[in-house]
Amino acid sequence: MSKNINNTIILRNKPSVIGYASVVGKHEKEGPIGDEFDCFDKDPRFGEDSFEKAESRMQKIAVETALKKANINETDIDLVFAGDLLNQCIGSTFGIRNMQIPFIGVYGACSTMALSLGLAAIFVDSGLSEKTVAVTSSHFCSAERQYRFPLEYGAIRPQTAQRTVTGAGATVIGTEANRPFINSVTFGKIVDLGVKDSNNMGAAMAPSAAETIKDFFNNTDTVAEDYDIIYTGDLGYIGTNILYDLLLKENIDIRCRHNDCGLKIYDRNRQDVHSGGSGCGCSATVLNSYIMHRLEDKTLKNILFISTGALLSPTSVLQGESIPGISHLINIKCN
Amino acid sequence: MSKNINNTIILRNKPSVIGYASVVGKHEKEGPIGDEFDCFDKDPRFGEDSFEKAESRMQKIAVETALKKANINETDIDLVFAGDLLNQCIGSTFGIRNMQIPFIGVYGACSTMALSLGLAAIFVDSGLSEKTVAVTSSHFCSAERQYRFPLEYGAIRPQTAQRTVTGAGATVIGTEANRPFINSVTFGKIVDLGVKDSNNMGAAMAPSAAETIKDFFNNTDTVAEDYDIIYTGDLGYIGTNILYDLLLKENIDIRCRHNDCGLKIYDRNRQDVHSGGSGCGCSATVLNSYIMHRLEDKTLKNILFISTGALLSPTSVLQGESIPGISHLINIKCN
Repeated sequence: MSKNINNTIILRNKPSVIGYASVVGKHEKEGPIGDEFDCFDKDPRFGEDSFEKAESRMQKIAVETALKKANINETDIDLVFAGDLLNQCIGSTFGIRNMQIPFIGVYGACSTMALSLGLAAIFVDSGLSEKTVAVTSSHFCSAERQYRFPLEYGAIRPQTAQRTVTGAGATVIGTEANRPFINSVTFGKIVDLGVKDSNNMGAAMAPSAAETIKDFFNNTDTVAEDYDIIYTGDLGYIGTNILYDLLLKENIDIRCRHNDCGLKIYDRNRQDVHSGGSGCGCSATVLNSYIMHRLEDKTLKNILFISTGALLSPTSVLQGESIPGISHLINIKCN
Repeated sequence: MSKNINNTIILRNKPSVIGYASVVGKHEKEGPIGDEFDCFDKDPRFGEDSFEKAESRMQKIAVETALKKANINETDIDLVFAGDLLNQCIGSTFGIRNMQIPFIGVYGACSTMALSLGLAAIFVDSGLSEKTVAVTSSHFCSAERQYRFPLEYGAIRPQTAQRTVTGAGATVIGTEANRPFINSVTFGKIVDLGVKDSNNMGAAMAPSAAETIKDFFNNTDTVAEDYDIIYTGDLGYIGTNILYDLLLKENIDIRCRHNDCGLKIYDRNRQDVHSGGSGCGCSATVLNSYIMHRLEDKTLKNILFISTGALLSPTSVLQGESIPGISHLINIKCN
């Protein structure tokens, strides 16, 4: 039986990662961890006729590749948990449409990888499902035209802005032993400290990351040094520094262990990504490549993975609203 | 321990409805079940300065009223499951923003009430949470301008179209005995038979409703007559008739027991609603008023509640895509 300590759910049956896959675009392939991804296409449309359809295509490829690597079929999966940034989550619904798998749509903006993975693990842990899939995606071109401007406008973005990762990541959860497993899940609360600048998402998301990390350390009576590494999703350079400041005020210092998927996926000196990477695909692709490889070969044995989401919409920004953030945390271990 | 028969999850611990509430607008209040709703406002903005903020306001009122009726506080709730139709689900995120409750965002279009309720019940049933809330909303004015045209255009809609319900519904799940309880949950698959007319959502959703109902009857070895009533979410007049046709082809006849929340909430002869009501708020408000009242007074003792969702976006429609549907089913009983 699983146990819930405040908002941290400790899983008792070690639901494990039996397959995973990452799909990326050209910019991500050219980044410092480019060799770790399973699939890439230099065509931003992935052979489709729109960026939105390309995003769905990436999700489909990610799930199919993850299932193949797990050596199982679609029919072996009891439930798929998926979501993305596009209006009405069409990246996911059209990506999963042709699979005959019961579908749970989730929305957590860029926190979706941890959200979907947490639910997928809980369903296996509690015996409700034998095997589940968590998947999410984002696409630079579909995100730019939806949230900001069509690329053709050539709009200049400030240095606080981040680049939406073109990529999809999928994780298959099962019960196989001797695999990396989900040890606990902490679903976050919505935190809004009043940041209104939609070109500074790192600042909007950092307070929720701080809150979830603080809650998790309190709930589990642990500190940063108890973990091999702590990965946030897409705070970027600016958000990461705000996270450090907020946590230091609470006497929590994670600097010795922390890294951010948005800083890992691109080389800020070499690639034009401003404050770093962002988007659901950012933490999803880094988790389902670089991080999983190191959990598999046991370079990493006990990590925290915290996807960070900014719960804005273009409409809420135009109506003068601030940007609420949410961060969900997954503790992944291997024996 | 809960049991999963194919895609039907049988709950063993009778997670119960310990509170519920419905909030509606003027049109719904004037409908045939207008007296059953908890709160209404004749101002479509609910005192806010935009329709989107009005929708968030309705969600907030629905949750607060449901908690009050359950005689508990926000701090008693372990998790809230919420979603809506607005881009990036801002109806939910801004509605729940100020509550200090871990938040799981879900997206199932108009199937969101059954989706969120199913998850909320499963978390309580499995002992992961003591008390959870499921909430969703829709608003005629925010939906029209997002999906179709701003109201000021005065666009004429065909008779196949439905009216988006202005309303929010919230259900609080706990473990109190002698209350209506969730007996099983069936999460649906995405079904797409190629309907492309976004002014005929009933036709797009009916195939998924048929699939989920057929799966459920197969999984549980039951027939329509075993239930007091079978409520679909928002198929409307046209979608309902397509559902009957599709099920009759499979030798399943639900006509003796079926009704549709989209037909229940408005009087099609008296109110200008074309094929009936639709939107996340449609099944949410009817469930959390009319249906719950009759489960409480035991007029109904064993029902099926199937929220139906159309997984389109304005972008997918403009790109010539068909409309996938999804339907989630909840079996609610009382002793």
